[in-house]
Amino acid sequence: MDLQSLKSPLAFLGELVPDSQLTPLKDYESWWLAEGTVISEAVDRAGTPWLRMFDQFGKRADEILFPPDYWKILKRGYQAGAIWRPFADDSSSLRMHYLIDYVTCFFDAGLGCPYIVSLSTTVPLKKYGTAELRDRYLPHLLRRDGTNWQGATWMTEVKGGSDLGANVETIARPVQQTVQSADRSASSDLWLLNGDKYFSSNVGAELAIVAARPAGAPQRGTGVPHRNHAQDARATPHGLALFLVPRIREDGGLNYFIRRLKNKIGTRSVPTGEVELRDSEAYLLGKPEWGIYLILESLNLSRVGNITGSVALAQRALADALTFAEGRVAFGKPIIEHPLMRRQFDERFAQLREARALMWEAIHLLDEVWQETPRYSDRYHLFRLIAHLAKYWTAELAVQFAKWNMEVHGGLGVLAEYPAERWLREAMILPIWEGTPHRQMLDGLEVMERKRAHEMLFQHLAPYVDQSDLQDISSRIEQHLQLAAEAKEAGIEPVFRDLAVFTARALAGKNR
Amino acid sequence: MDLQSLKSPLAFLGELVPDSQLTPLKDYESWWLAEGTVISEAVDRAGTPWLRMFDQFGKRADEILFPPDYWKILKRGYQAGAIWRPFADDSSSLRMHYLIDYVTCFFDAGLGCPYIVSLSTTVPLKKYGTAELRDRYLPHLLRRDGTNWQGATWMTEVKGGSDLGANVETIARPVQQTVQSADRSASSDLWLLNGDKYFSSNVGAELAIVAARPAGAPQRGTGVPHRNHAQDARATPHGLALFLVPRIREDGGLNYFIRRLKNKIGTRSVPTGEVELRDSEAYLLGKPEWGIYLILESLNLSRVGNITGSVALAQRALADALTFAEGRVAFGKPIIEHPLMRRQFDERFAQLREARALMWEAIHLLDEVWQETPRYSDRYHLFRLIAHLAKYWTAELAVQFAKWNMEVHGGLGVLAEYPAERWLREAMILPIWEGTPHRQMLDGLEVMERKRAHEMLFQHLAPYVDQSDLQDISSRIEQHLQLAAEAKEAGIEPVFRDLAVFTARALAGKNR
Amino acid sequence: MDLQSLKSPLAFLGELVPDSQLTPLKDYESWWLAEGTVISEAVDRAGTPWLRMFDQFGKRADEILFPPDYWKILKRGYQAGAIWRPFADDSSSLRMHYLIDYVTCFFDAGLGCPYIVSLSTTVPLKKYGTAELRDRYLPHLLRRDGTNWQGATWMTEVKGGSDLGANVETIARPVQQTVQSADRSASSDLWLLNGDKYFSSNVGAELAIVAARPAGAPQRGTGVPHRNHAQDARATPHGLALFLVPRIREDGGLNYFIRRLKNKIGTRSVPTGEVELRDSEAYLLGKPEWGIYLILESLNLSRVGNITGSVALAQRALADALTFAEGRVAFGKPIIEHPLMRRQFDERFAQLREARALMWEAIHLLDEVWQETPRYSDRYHLFRLIAHLAKYWTAELAVQFAKWNMEVHGGLGVLAEYPAERWLREAMILPIWEGTPHRQMLDGLEVMERKRAHEMLFQHLAPYVDQSDLQDISSRIEQHLQLAAEAKEAGIEPVFRDLAVFTARALAGKNR
Amino acid sequence: MDLQSLKSPLAFLGELVPDSQLTPLKDYESWWLAEGTVISEAVDRAGTPWLRMFDQFGKRADEILFPPDYWKILKRGYQAGAIWRPFADDSSSLRMHYLIDYVTCFFDAGLGCPYIVSLSTTVPLKKYGTAELRDRYLPHLLRRDGTNWQGATWMTEVKGGSDLGANVETIARPVQQTVQSADRSASSDLWLLNGDKYFSSNVGAELAIVAARPAGAPQRGTGVPHRNHAQDARATPHGLALFLVPRIREDGGLNYFIRRLKNKIGTRSVPTGEVELRDSEAYLLGKPEWGIYLILESLNLSRVGNITGSVALAQRALADALTFAEGRVAFGKPIIEHPLMRRQFDERFAQLREARALMWEAIHLLDEVWQETPRYSDRYHLFRLIAHLAKYWTAELAVQFAKWNMEVHGGLGVLAEYPAERWLREAMILPIWEGTPHRQMLDGLEVMERKRAHEMLFQHLAPYVDQSDLQDISSRIEQHLQLAAEAKEAGIEPVFRDLAVFTARALAGKNR
Repeated sequence: MDLQSLKSPLAFLGELVPDSQLTPLKDYESWWLAEGTVISEAVDRAGTPWLRMFDQFGKRADEILFPPDYWKILKRGYQAGAIWRPFADDSSSLRMHYLIDYVTCFFDAGLGCPYIVSLSTTVPLKKYGTAELRDRYLPHLLRRDGTNWQGATWMTEVKGGSDLGANVETIARPVQQTVQSADRSASSDLWLLNGDKYFSSNVGAELAIVAARPAGAPQRGTGVPHRNHAQDARATPHGLALFLVPRIREDGGLNYFIRRLKNKIGTRSVPTGEVELRDSEAYLLGKPEWGIYLILESLNLSRVGNITGSVALAQRALADALTFAEGRVAFGKPIIEHPLMRRQFDERFAQLREARALMWEAIHLLDEVWQETPRYSDRYHLFRLIAHLAKYWTAELAVQFAKWNMEVHGGLGVLAEYPAERWLREAMILPIWEGTPHRQMLDGLEVMERKRAHEMLFQHLAPYVDQSDLQDISSRIEQHLQLAAEAKEAGIEPVFRDLAVFTARALAGKNR
Repeated sequence: MDLQSLKSPLAFLGELVPDSQLTPLKDYESWWLAEGTVISEAVDRAGTPWLRMFDQFGKRADEILFPPDYWKILKRGYQAGAIWRPFADDSSSLRMHYLIDYVTCFFDAGLGCPYIVSLSTTVPLKKYGTAELRDRYLPHLLRRDGTNWQGATWMTEVKGGSDLGANVETIARPVQQTVQSADRSASSDLWLLNGDKYFSSNVGAELAIVAARPAGAPQRGTGVPHRNHAQDARATPHGLALFLVPRIREDGGLNYFIRRLKNKIGTRSVPTGEVELRDSEAYLLGKPEWGIYLILESLNLSRVGNITGSVALAQRALADALTFAEGRVAFGKPIIEHPLMRRQFDERFAQLREARALMWEAIHLLDEVWQETPRYSDRYHLFRLIAHLAKYWTAELAVQFAKWNMEVHGGLGVLAEYPAERWLREAMILPIWEGTPHRQMLDGLEVMERKRAHEMLFQHLAPYVDQSDLQDISSRIEQHLQLAAEAKEAGIEPVFRDLAVFTARALAGKNR
Repeated sequence: MDLQSLKSPLAFLGELVPDSQLTPLKDYESWWLAEGTVISEAVDRAGTPWLRMFDQFGKRADEILFPPDYWKILKRGYQAGAIWRPFADDSSSLRMHYLIDYVTCFFDAGLGCPYIVSLSTTVPLKKYGTAELRDRYLPHLLRRDGTNWQGATWMTEVKGGSDLGANVETIARPVQQTVQSADRSASSDLWLLNGDKYFSSNVGAELAIVAARPAGAPQRGTGVPHRNHAQDARATPHGLALFLVPRIREDGGLNYFIRRLKNKIGTRSVPTGEVELRDSEAYLLGKPEWGIYLILESLNLSRVGNITGSVALAQRALADALTFAEGRVAFGKPIIEHPLMRRQFDERFAQLREARALMWEAIHLLDEVWQETPRYSDRYHLFRLIAHLAKYWTAELAVQFAKWNMEVHGGLGVLAEYPAERWLREAMILPIWEGTPHRQMLDGLEVMERKRAHEMLFQHLAPYVDQSDLQDISSRIEQHLQLAAEAKEAGIEPVFRDLAVFTARALAGKNR
Repeated sequence: MDLQSLKSPLAFLGELVPDSQLTPLKDYESWWLAEGTVISEAVDRAGTPWLRMFDQFGKRADEILFPPDYWKILKRGYQAGAIWRPFADDSSSLRMHYLIDYVTCFFDAGLGCPYIVSLSTTVPLKKYGTAELRDRYLPHLLRRDGTNWQGATWMTEVKGGSDLGANVETIARPVQQTVQSADRSASSDLWLLNGDKYFSSNVGAELAIVAARPAGAPQRGTGVPHRNHAQDARATPHGLALFLVPRIREDGGLNYFIRRLKNKIGTRSVPTGEVELRDSEAYLLGKPEWGIYLILESLNLSRVGNITGSVALAQRALADALTFAEGRVAFGKPIIEHPLMRRQFDERFAQLREARALMWEAIHLLDEVWQETPRYSDRYHLFRLIAHLAKYWTAELAVQFAKWNMEVHGGLGVLAEYPAERWLREAMILPIWEGTPHRQMLDGLEVMERKRAHEMLFQHLAPYVDQSDLQDISSRIEQHLQLAAEAKEAGIEPVFRDLAVFTARALAGKNR
């Protein structure tokens, strides 16, 4: 395959994805090339948008002032089907969402976020919402004309996101305890939430799913890291439940407040803010004791979004490097023709194709399992392991390719005037959002330890790999799992990295 | 050695550097902790300084408007001895410069640049300037009270920096050809320069060394990359000469103009601009035909500065990660106590110490050779190889550690509000300035091919390493050098990286 | 008439302007309300646009990076007819241009500038260009689909704009003296310009008219202000000529360079820059010795544009004040209902209507005289006097109303978050551009002294005013003109102001 | 007196103020010229400072990140005596405070604000605080070494500042009602405040005085503007009380929160924010039913500060215009030598001297009355009238002179690159802060109607004016006061303006 395919997301995907699936996206890609790119650059250049907190008559407004064009690029992806397409037929496949994400993130890495969190709001509403809630809200989310409501997923509070069990201090109270509303017959599921969310992506969304602690539920305070528990560590933060929170209260007022927008170095095309929940109306999703599972299910969706965005951004970084290397002349010829430079391209192109295979597998496995509810199947755990490996590895590639693109640009790489530095700023969220590498490794380790997910993985990969290679990595994993707890955790990094690369390479072979 | 030494540059250097050499810097480090840090943060936050191009009466001024505190942190390092100390005794050692650089770059990675380019101006003036030039300018550079003149090194033009031979279009004309000045008896060395410099670090400096092409000298236009030449590739750009250019003309006017300041993503504490040379008065340094050698000698100095700054920044990134990991609690304990996190720290700390050894060796070798003039000794070529390896490797570590520091910070890592993201922005100049990795590898390859510098290197390292390891790497290098030209260049990266790591590890053993 | 008419430019103009003339603008106003306003606010908020001086391959580009929506609002006015409408029929009326300007400036005060300078380029090209030039360039300027070329008028250099005779140092050389181009038969009128323009409005325009000094022409250096000359003071800067300068050279390269964009406090919707003319290809307009007259004719056009923009902005300031005063409650009722506030509105509304009458008269007189060439008619001089009075007075109102709007807003008036402060920033260009108040008074004085323009004015106003009032002001003017030169100049301000108010009031009576 | 005195605040004040009073300020002025000016420019250029709301471990911090030099210029004025000097001897004179303010505001108009609000905190604490409160807090405020605590005055809430009676919604509850604290014997005066302040100047101060409504006190909701009340309109908002609120709680935590910093167009050297009071500890000052009087007393102090700052800024604008007019050459000579320009300077210089006299009188009268408590003397009401006249008139001059300075600068006046535009941005707060012109007129009208303050004024001015002039203005006022209520309010503006000018001119005569 030729390096030139780097320059188009659809061309690059086309090696793997049937044309019929990509056809609906051709207009979308063309639009990005013709109009979207320059808008995306301007949004990035404009930096953090302004928040107009009050209107001029003193009424709280919380209006986010993007360059007006922002809303155009945002809507374009919704129209293309970021939310509605997965539910447009009976296939139960989320694939079209991720393909749209891919194209989007090639052009604007931050914009994938509104789409994935909107999906991550739609899915639990569909799976766990009461009929009444679904009727009320789903049609707004699934509109096709760009006027759809957006979703958002707000879990993290100021003390940090990885240990939700300890750090979520938002309290939910059923409304009967708080408000006398005799005439609201169907509102038995109304709760009021109070607390502050610290990293609230796509703030301003019309609907959000929010992690909160029903009043009286325990907050874990044992001080013992979950890894040492004999029982299911995931059960520890069982005090959490998941709620649906609309932006507008039933009386028409604001239902949550945006304290401020985060001044981020990248992904400026998604507004991230701090949210104040103050007696905010909320609806419970699923059973309260399932809360942590619903949260993790939502993370599954966005983790695959992270993988998709990472591969797309990695492609973009190589594409830009290629364009530059074709145009920049040194020592009498374009630098792409210098042997070392060419070799560097070839190696990275190969890695990118392996990452693409890993991504594609994660999407397909998610499609198989996303409708499950607890207790989950083995296939679900296989998905989880692959998602951890893929999230870890693709985010790393995205950052390294973005860094390398800057090096290819030489001095221009560090100037704000040119786009090269942007991709590194954009990329840095990828290893961090939805769990740092550290987190992926430990959670991956856990699913191997407790669910033997590696065995399913090796079985899954067996058709595509040399069997002695498979034997080698399999033994290495088994040996590692025999280590004492502390050594096992401490030494996981090289094992996990090699497993990720092995898996990617194997899957690339499958798709060849 | 304890991780806590990461928090102080002098504590970390103290393992290697005799206390007597560090004592003069204790006040300097203390000042940074007490006052400098907050100023440095503010300068970074303020972004690119303003350029006031004209005063309000229409007179060209080219005044750079930093936050006024900037000048205070800038002067502090000059007072500490960034320029004067190397020349304060008869030792001919530049070591104190680099130690000051190290401390500086731990606190403000951009500020090392003014110091190193000032040194890189002082050294050729001292080595190659006429007695008249030295008398006129050296005292200004060597002042100890912070009122010293600054230097600058301006080579690169708009078409790029790596291929100076082709890309320097600035023309120098001896003044006799241009101006009738019968009464200026001593000015036989006065030239007038015309051209544009595109990446001019420390713009605004009172003196700069500038690469230009004496009128009539050939500009290489063969279109053949130098690597394929049988003869000395370095001789190709023999049309270049090196000039000393003051900021103020003899008649008191501006001698060069700042077209604009570059909007850089990092290193905002050094103003980088585009410079217009318009009949700018200039003085030839050395013989015209030596120009390219003088340029490369100047690069030697700044390359070691780049190495120093890289190790210092790598230390800083780990220091900040450590402070965060000690304070951030998850799953009941500070995250530094989580086994995988601790392991990641230990591995990086070991790498940092190896990098430090490589840096220290480069400084010592430079001290041996910096006073040489062409033709150079073998020792000079050994220095060159080590400098290429060290520049390549330490810059890579700086970037990777800065990236990792952001990951340790989690979501806070991508917020402009906190310092973690700054170090990545600062670090990205390090692999690029003074030659990208690509350039280091090719130039390192050349000095091995043409000067057999690897043989000297292995001899140099022999006392500190296992002999079979030495044999292995030596054979690998020799085999690589036997390859055909294109394959040799294309395949250099893994060989070169391993040689860098091997050398660093060996030298770390030496200093143990 | 009701205060509510303040909220729509067409409603307010409708009292004076026949509906048939306003009908074509209804869509334009509606578009501004629906879409344009929010874009205009975003462009202002974005501040000075970036200039991308080189593309990433080192080629000079001088690309102005506005938020992409900017181009949409810019084009909308061109499509509405800012340039093409005045030439769409045989009426020879520029009125539609100014009506479009009015609507535009109500919504975006800076945007009137591109339109008026484009007109000011089109008119001299049409009047004084050779048939060849007109054929080549007019069709580009007159396109109706928004793809038209833009014009620009660049006179001022770094030493200041009011004394062009002394301060224009740009030199024009006929091409025969500079370049050997035997084969370019028709290019006898090609000149090359060298110099720097300091306040270049609408920089980036495809065509500009530029004041330059044909090589060899005298630069006035007498040091004697023109007011004391017995002969025609306007003749003094007879060394200037007017040239047409395209953006692109005949060989496809850039014909002028943008050194930088000015960081202005307002009118950010017009890019203002510094322009470097470097052997820039140029075409002489009219006879060289007419240069200063052509420059002044161009000023006539933009001065009426300034008047139009001032009245529109003054209306906008009152409109915003009204909206706020209707919504803000204090002491139990909207502040518009407080008697003093209401009185302040009524007084300003009356002043605004007088200013409108003055504007309308200036437009009509311009229509009568804009096609004249030297020697001019009396009517031309009457126009000049009214234009000076109106420029002086309407700009003053615009600033004072914008200031007062801020006061009505109270503390919100000084916050960047709300629009009130914007209008003051926008307004401040109005008393300055096209001649400060100081300049208007002195030039107005001159046309009274030398052309007896006040006599024509009084004759013109006689039908609409009380004759004893007319007698009073007439005597006062005559007495003032009898004063010694220095006293006459020193004391002009109160006389001139009263004459402006008298004229405005009289004309408001005419139109009642 | 010569125009040159414009260039130094002390030189200009020296005509009026005894040298002995100015001597202590000579160093202060010199320091501003040598160091402060450039810092002040940089603080303005840096824009709104950042607010670091949380530290990196998630602890609320509310740290204001100015350029570090800011704190140096801030402290310099405190050291000079902005707070301690008025209390350094037994003179009970606040004069030294205002002289320091004058010098400060000549150089940095925003910086006067921290000083005056600190004074306005110190005075009520001294007058109305319990002995315990005074002992605890006064020593911190009165430190002389620059480490003093700062004060602040927070009244306004989101619905507006002029109608405090209706718009203050912050509730104060005595602590016994809220918290069980049996052991805190002396804390009978501790209250807890809850509410949001919208324009909080000098946010971050260690102490603030805050208007709040004791729980249960009435909030005026009659909807009848106070002007129509027969009884004392000032009594209406009798539900308000004044509290002292420290930044740090007794347990060491933050006692108030900064929601955000206001993005102001000027006076960036004082941080203005929104404050959240959340069970904030507070101490009642004076009797609860005196609250509104204490608030008005505090306004007296800051109103005189506004007058001082206005005259100082007006002087600065003229000073800068003069410097420019001396250096800018047009038509062969500096523009200051052009007769009209010179006349404009002379007229404004005369107005400035009248404004200075008005300011000086306000300061002296304040000195006579600032220690009074309700019921107030006639002298107090005379002071009030003069303060209203002076606040109205001097703020107007400051704005008009700042505007005119921009016009003198021509095109440079609208560039952010030069200082001219800054003074207009700074000036615009002056007519707004501490009551808009509208407010001054109505309050001035009230004190004439209800206290016959104009009679005292005319008696006060009688020695310095022509008696027939006095008679004229006196009759005019009396006639105006006879008008019906609505007409009286509606028509107050011209009367009030003329009275202000008359008073200023009279007092300028007194001091001649």
